[in-house]
Amino acid sequence: MLQSGLCRSTLLFTLTFVLAMFTATIDTLKASPAVSSVTEFKLDNGLQVIVVPDHRAPVVTHYVWYRVGSADETAGVSGVAHFLEHLMFKSTDKIASGAFSKIIAKLGGQDNAFTNYDVTGYYQRIAKDRLKTVMEMEADRMVNLRLTEREVATEREVILEERRSRTENNPSAILSEQMSAALYQNHPYRIPIIGWMHEMAKLSREDAMSFYKRFYAPNNAIVVVAGDVSVDEVRNLAQAAYGSLKPNPDIKERVRPQEPPHRAPRRVELKDPRAGNASVRRYYLTPSISTAAPGEAEALYLMMKIAANGSTSRLYQKLVSEEKIASSAGGWYSGSGLDSGSIGIYAVAAEGVDLGKLEAAMDGVLHELREKGVTEGELDRAKKAFIAEFVYESDSQSALARRYAEGALLGQTIEQVNDFPAAIARVTVADIARVAAKHLDIRNSVTGTLIPVPSEPEREAALKPEAGKL
Amino acid sequence: MLQSGLCRSTLLFTLTFVLAMFTATIDTLKASPAVSSVTEFKLDNGLQVIVVPDHRAPVVTHYVWYRVGSADETAGVSGVAHFLEHLMFKSTDKIASGAFSKIIAKLGGQDNAFTNYDVTGYYQRIAKDRLKTVMEMEADRMVNLRLTEREVATEREVILEERRSRTENNPSAILSEQMSAALYQNHPYRIPIIGWMHEMAKLSREDAMSFYKRFYAPNNAIVVVAGDVSVDEVRNLAQAAYGSLKPNPDIKERVRPQEPPHRAPRRVELKDPRAGNASVRRYYLTPSISTAAPGEAEALYLMMKIAANGSTSRLYQKLVSEEKIASSAGGWYSGSGLDSGSIGIYAVAAEGVDLGKLEAAMDGVLHELREKGVTEGELDRAKKAFIAEFVYESDSQSALARRYAEGALLGQTIEQVNDFPAAIARVTVADIARVAAKHLDIRNSVTGTLIPVPSEPEREAALKPEAGKL
Repeated sequence: MLQSGLCRSTLLFTLTFVLAMFTATIDTLKASPAVSSVTEFKLDNGLQVIVVPDHRAPVVTHYVWYRVGSADETAGVSGVAHFLEHLMFKSTDKIASGAFSKIIAKLGGQDNAFTNYDVTGYYQRIAKDRLKTVMEMEADRMVNLRLTEREVATEREVILEERRSRTENNPSAILSEQMSAALYQNHPYRIPIIGWMHEMAKLSREDAMSFYKRFYAPNNAIVVVAGDVSVDEVRNLAQAAYGSLKPNPDIKERVRPQEPPHRAPRRVELKDPRAGNASVRRYYLTPSISTAAPGEAEALYLMMKIAANGSTSRLYQKLVSEEKIASSAGGWYSGSGLDSGSIGIYAVAAEGVDLGKLEAAMDGVLHELREKGVTEGELDRAKKAFIAEFVYESDSQSALARRYAEGALLGQTIEQVNDFPAAIARVTVADIARVAAKHLDIRNSVTGTLIPVPSEPEREAALKPEAGKL
Repeated sequence: MLQSGLCRSTLLFTLTFVLAMFTATIDTLKASPAVSSVTEFKLDNGLQVIVVPDHRAPVVTHYVWYRVGSADETAGVSGVAHFLEHLMFKSTDKIASGAFSKIIAKLGGQDNAFTNYDVTGYYQRIAKDRLKTVMEMEADRMVNLRLTEREVATEREVILEERRSRTENNPSAILSEQMSAALYQNHPYRIPIIGWMHEMAKLSREDAMSFYKRFYAPNNAIVVVAGDVSVDEVRNLAQAAYGSLKPNPDIKERVRPQEPPHRAPRRVELKDPRAGNASVRRYYLTPSISTAAPGEAEALYLMMKIAANGSTSRLYQKLVSEEKIASSAGGWYSGSGLDSGSIGIYAVAAEGVDLGKLEAAMDGVLHELREKGVTEGELDRAKKAFIAEFVYESDSQSALARRYAEGALLGQTIEQVNDFPAAIARVTVADIARVAAKHLDIRNSVTGTLIPVPSEPEREAALKPEAGKL
């Protein structure tokens, strides 16, 4: 879970952000009408519906999240989850090709979509009296998608171009991709969400349609409505729009190949003329919220906040402010994966600084964390920072909606989602010492270095003894 | 293709050995009755049969090779190809559980089996008048295998123990496994043939039976008979034993996920108290016989023979004989993979020698190879060495049989197999320079280091300042 999701346009779900949404103080939450009245129910066809009341304005956020992502793709067909997300904006019997977003815009709304390892999500934000329409539109494309060969061919060019601009032209993205491929030995989190270029280039209409028929169904979807609505309103609208859709009896619980024990640290070294300053990063495989022992994910989150999040973090203070060997440095815990989480940490070398020296300094910070844990003062400040972020994020209706969608995706109840801030509050310095000792294990890690080199013509010129004389 | 196959008992197919079997001089071959009269035909049910006459003694070698190996396993069910190989020695209606090999032994024969990435093979060597019986036995278990839950549970313990003794107790094997997992980012060659322990532990009767029903069928098998038989005899016997078996219409050409371009060299470092002397090894991804441009595989083979095969190789001469920094060193080209090949090279540090120094010396040998290629004299000697090995191996009836089975597996005709020695003879120093420049590309490589460390109690003792004083 090292990569943020891929989105149709600009809506980016970074996983750290998603995680941050889980955090608040109990007091804050008790004061919030949203939390006390969040309600969940299922239609007879298995569709899970979550209602998050938010009456500040007469608008709603409507999410349809399918329990399918790139990690559910068949080997060799990478990228099809994301490709299908694009193709979901083609036609049905009722909606002309490409008209979906235009209709939403005409109704005064916004829409978008994203694909991640574990989920594919569709989103509309719109006036509350239009909710019925967008629900009908989503219900329609849940089962009635039509695709022509021509649409598929054209959209395939779009995703190939997306990969070119996001990955191929970005050495940092390439390194992340190569590191993920080395971090996971068995799990499909190894494979980029957008897919491998050579497999994307072969994606066919049949690939997309068979993925659609296999995974898009009411009993594989979570609908979240946040906004100026009551539970009864949403129940009636959802029943009317989605209730008649047939469940797919072949939907099963997702079982993906799991990791063997990791025994040997890995390194990946990328040399690239476009690299900018040299940099080093490291990923550790860890549990996620859904796989961790109770309290472990929360402790990992706080640990990484203290260690590497922002300019007051240990890493930044040491490498950037004090030693001035890094121009930037940071890190995070990614805990929203269904099957595993990870820690990431990085530093960009200041001009002329040796990368070995930089990595040694980064290792020093991690070593101290592992050996000595954190202080009560640091932990207290980290918890306070969470509260601030949580409260800020709770102002966003879509963040509220995502919080519960994410919980549902990971199999949590509303109560468990609501308890997350309390679980954060319960973390002790001893808990952090324990997870640091357990999970900052170099055997579970990949270290990546990104090293600028002269471009090919420059390199050739430098190698020719007579270069410049001709 | 970095690991030799897994065999039921002692018959080991190393891939370098398999490759070496492809090599000889044209003159030698023309003198051999085997080559001139090797014959291939298909039964109506799709069974491919190859007859290799060898009249030196009244014995035959009978192979049944299925076009299925560990790289055809469904993700998450690793090890099932090899598990099924074991279970094929359980019962059918005609043969009692575990009696297969006993019957062969009573008939004065030997039998065995092996599993590799691309193939699962069964073998009998027996007096020629028993060929009918062993064909009937193989035909019987091709379609009539019976498995009880108890047999499956017991045999699962056997393969788990096999993994413990072969891999878990062997740091060099663990490092190889970890390096393969890092060498391949997408292809199932990444996954150990024997499987990951946690997936092997879950292998069920149903997993084995569904794999059996999917892949074991006459139209997915190659039968090779080498020995004191005529083509007509074999045709009649094969028709009688196998002819009535129904083909499986669902057998398709194997398409596995292919590798994306490799962009960044990887490193894997394994620390283990059982490691012995420190060592370094490197794998490069290369084409195989079946994926290479014409002549490329042969050039890679000769290149690695010159560079690293045996005590007269450049690597051994430099590191062991001259500089005395290595206690052993070697390398190989593995070219028998259906989808890709690889180069491997290693050196074990002499007592007290720094691993960095050792790797630099290894790199020096590779660098010289890449920059300057090989000499005519070296190439000539390497070709002569091949001839000697080839002639020696041709004395083995089973090696003759394997040579043609391997060719058939890779989709080669008898003529192509027979032409391999000539193709070796055609390789020039320019060809080797070209493949060296092209394929000794560090971006396609994984470097592994195996480093001895004190065992846990030793380490703890060393860390205690008062250790030894109590």
